[in-house]
Amino acid sequence: MQIIKTIKELRPVIHEYRLKNKSIGFVPTMGALHPGHLSLIKASREECECTVISIYVNPIQFNDKEDFDSYPRNFNADTQKVRDAGVDILFIPDDKEIYSKESSTFVEVSGHVTNILCGISRPSHFRGVATVVCKLLNIVQPDKAYFGMKDAQQAIVVAKMVNDLNFPVDIRFMPIVREKNGLACSSRNENLTDKERKKAIVLNQTLCHAEKRIIEDEERDAMKVTGEMYEMVSKTKGAEIDYISIVSLPDLKDVKEIKDQVMIAMAVVIGETRLIDNITLNVNEKK
Amino acid sequence: MQIIKTIKELRPVIHEYRLKNKSIGFVPTMGALHPGHLSLIKASREECECTVISIYVNPIQFNDKEDFDSYPRNFNADTQKVRDAGVDILFIPDDKEIYSKESSTFVEVSGHVTNILCGISRPSHFRGVATVVCKLLNIVQPDKAYFGMKDAQQAIVVAKMVNDLNFPVDIRFMPIVREKNGLACSSRNENLTDKERKKAIVLNQTLCHAEKRIIEDEERDAMKVTGEMYEMVSKTKGAEIDYISIVSLPDLKDVKEIKDQVMIAMAVVIGETRLIDNITLNVNEKK
Repeated sequence: MQIIKTIKELRPVIHEYRLKNKSIGFVPTMGALHPGHLSLIKASREECECTVISIYVNPIQFNDKEDFDSYPRNFNADTQKVRDAGVDILFIPDDKEIYSKESSTFVEVSGHVTNILCGISRPSHFRGVATVVCKLLNIVQPDKAYFGMKDAQQAIVVAKMVNDLNFPVDIRFMPIVREKNGLACSSRNENLTDKERKKAIVLNQTLCHAEKRIIEDEERDAMKVTGEMYEMVSKTKGAEIDYISIVSLPDLKDVKEIKDQVMIAMAVVIGETRLIDNITLNVNEKK
Repeated sequence: MQIIKTIKELRPVIHEYRLKNKSIGFVPTMGALHPGHLSLIKASREECECTVISIYVNPIQFNDKEDFDSYPRNFNADTQKVRDAGVDILFIPDDKEIYSKESSTFVEVSGHVTNILCGISRPSHFRGVATVVCKLLNIVQPDKAYFGMKDAQQAIVVAKMVNDLNFPVDIRFMPIVREKNGLACSSRNENLTDKERKKAIVLNQTLCHAEKRIIEDEERDAMKVTGEMYEMVSKTKGAEIDYISIVSLPDLKDVKEIKDQVMIAMAVVIGETRLIDNITLNVNEKK
């Protein structure tokens, strides 16, 4: 595995792969790697001849410095994990490499998809995500880039940006990976205490309840389902709901009547840690 | 010469060139081609193995519909010109090809360089330019892209965007091409009447006066020089000044004392047509 820290060193390596017509798969991450990330690497290795992973904690997608500072960082453990996973190139740039002092260009995905769900409580978050992904795509020049559906809105925003700006890359959405107890794998889980980790299961439990109500009981009233979800989470002490929503896919419009493809998405703060989770359902498929 | 109208058709052609490691030069234009454009093609042909020119009148860089509607369009004459000039690929997409109905992602070069000179009278102009250039770079994937210095601020904004977003392309600034009488070549000149065309010479004459005052007379007071320029243009009936400025390069800051690299830039409306022109001087170079 090549470990590369600068754009200048990465460019000729990428150029060689491109000249040989080798397909490049890219997994952009902020490190603190977990089984979710490893599933993205696995998918890339299955579909592409070269897999590049980047580890970079992108400051401009954080809304407050405290959250940025407390974001988990395990560079040594991460390096071992990606080596074991068979990654070809690990790109770990520093801040100076990604944002020069003069840098002031931003990619803005405007419209509904960035103004709902996480876009409400994290105002400039998706601008930061779109900008850094745009930069990384220009640096790595992959054929395919892999995003986990735990951050479903992020994946949708990135896919929209790539489509709107004609990036020559295929954005691949990969399913959420969960711990045995149902908790969605997330780097932020590292910030949970043991007690909080137990409480955090409520997100998945609530989503499973909603799925049961929609699929088995054929409940179609979105307000009724989210109402029950609110009630379940509210019973957990120290859990503060940011949002619980049922939206259409891929346009993320709030739905009243549940039909076709929907996503049930939620953000809950457990202690100091904001967690998100979701499930997607195709209501016409089953039953 | 290949004439290509869709992104889908262009991609495999570009891919072939890239696989063969052939360098691609790109000249993005809005058509109504003149000797300035032809000089960009010439430079590309000298430096690159394949030259791609695009002709697309980009609606989102116009501030009003009237200006967009009256922008000159000569597709048949243009096609003949680029064929004669030895272009390899002419890309002429239509609006549907470039902006889908759902498209809502914009590239915003924020900060001083977009908030001065033409950025004042044309508020969202550079956002439109940055967005379409970003899209075209992703479609054409050139090694070098050529911009004329008549639109110096545009070239500077594009170069900043490319640098800030890490596009793997070299932006080449090419000198202004002028008609015999000094008028800077511009597609908009086509909209001038014969009478207006004579009046339009005042831009170049005024810039030449400024150059003489700075280089020969060693005048270093920017206000004094621009004051004289204002006076010269004001004597031309039907000429309305938008701005006359002396700014530093490449950061476009207003200067009081003329030194080092400066650009003297002006925008003047002649009749219904807004014209821009500039000269750059290295004050320490001569004398």
